[in-house]
Amino acid sequence: MTEIKLQIEPLTKQGFAPYGDVIEVNSENQIISINHGLADRHHDLIKVDVNNENGHTIVSIIDTQKVCLPFRVCVMERHPLGSQAFMPIGNNPYIVVVTEPGEFDYNQLKGFLVRPDQGVNYAKGTWHHSCMSLYEANQFLVVDRGGQGANCDFVAVPDNVSITIDDEDCL
Amino acid sequence: MTEIKLQIEPLTKQGFAPYGDVIEVNSENQIISINHGLADRHHDLIKVDVNNENGHTIVSIIDTQKVCLPFRVCVMERHPLGSQAFMPIGNNPYIVVVTEPGEFDYNQLKGFLVRPDQGVNYAKGTWHHSCMSLYEANQFLVVDRGGQGANCDFVAVPDNVSITIDDEDCL
Repeated sequence: MTEIKLQIEPLTKQGFAPYGDVIEVNSENQIISINHGLADRHHDLIKVDVNNENGHTIVSIIDTQKVCLPFRVCVMERHPLGSQAFMPIGNNPYIVVVTEPGEFDYNQLKGFLVRPDQGVNYAKGTWHHSCMSLYEANQFLVVDRGGQGANCDFVAVPDNVSITIDDEDCL
Repeated sequence: MTEIKLQIEPLTKQGFAPYGDVIEVNSENQIISINHGLADRHHDLIKVDVNNENGHTIVSIIDTQKVCLPFRVCVMERHPLGSQAFMPIGNNPYIVVVTEPGEFDYNQLKGFLVRPDQGVNYAKGTWHHSCMSLYEANQFLVVDRGGQGANCDFVAVPDNVSITIDDEDCL
């Protein structure tokens, strides 16, 4: 059995760039004053990449259960036809696990601890685990692709490989 | 001076239907079990209507100040080229004020009190006030249209008309 303990690092735009976008209030954003100065718009934060082969944008809510640590990563998925954005509704941190598009390599997995005020947008084809809510169940607003076409592939980590996330690995 | 006190009613899908969609977890939604039973997807909740004239979907965060009641409604806006969805990030209720697309008639204004777990999607052309966050500043994830074209019209309530929202009008 090959045992891998996945290191979890805090989510940043730079760290997540190979996998997609971070949704957050950040002074580096393009910020537009609107509503006669009563609001600031952090404008156009992600690449919504869904319009191929008659795809279109859909908005959904995903209601997730919490995960208990230690957690073993067994199955990953990707959406070959579109990006997929998650923004938490609520106040719980969560963990995302990703690896770059292309041939799946479990040695390349990266784990990020995401603050409740941050969202992620997986680029088309980025391998990702389902969002792992810590402490409590979480809801996410999801912006992804609707339309024809096979848009969800799964891959399993080999049975003789154990990839785990422990409490002490959440820095 | 014509004085109008705007009644504010709780937001429901039925009540908001002339103006757009409500984003909420609701047993009437299409619910899909995903991630091997670990999550429920409330699927495709709104009409994202942005793809005309080379428009495309963008995702932004709007950071709003709170409003103090009583509040006087002075200016409304509409987006003739696209829908605009708001989902709060955080735990504050807010008020939306709308009237149907077409010629603006201040006598037809409707006000809704929105729970923190509810979002709204203004249909293309629906006249709306900026979101009015109660108690505290609020952030919203916004899904609307990017691209060329004049996509924001404003209209002012006449100076001799006072439309106000009072605490006691929030049922």
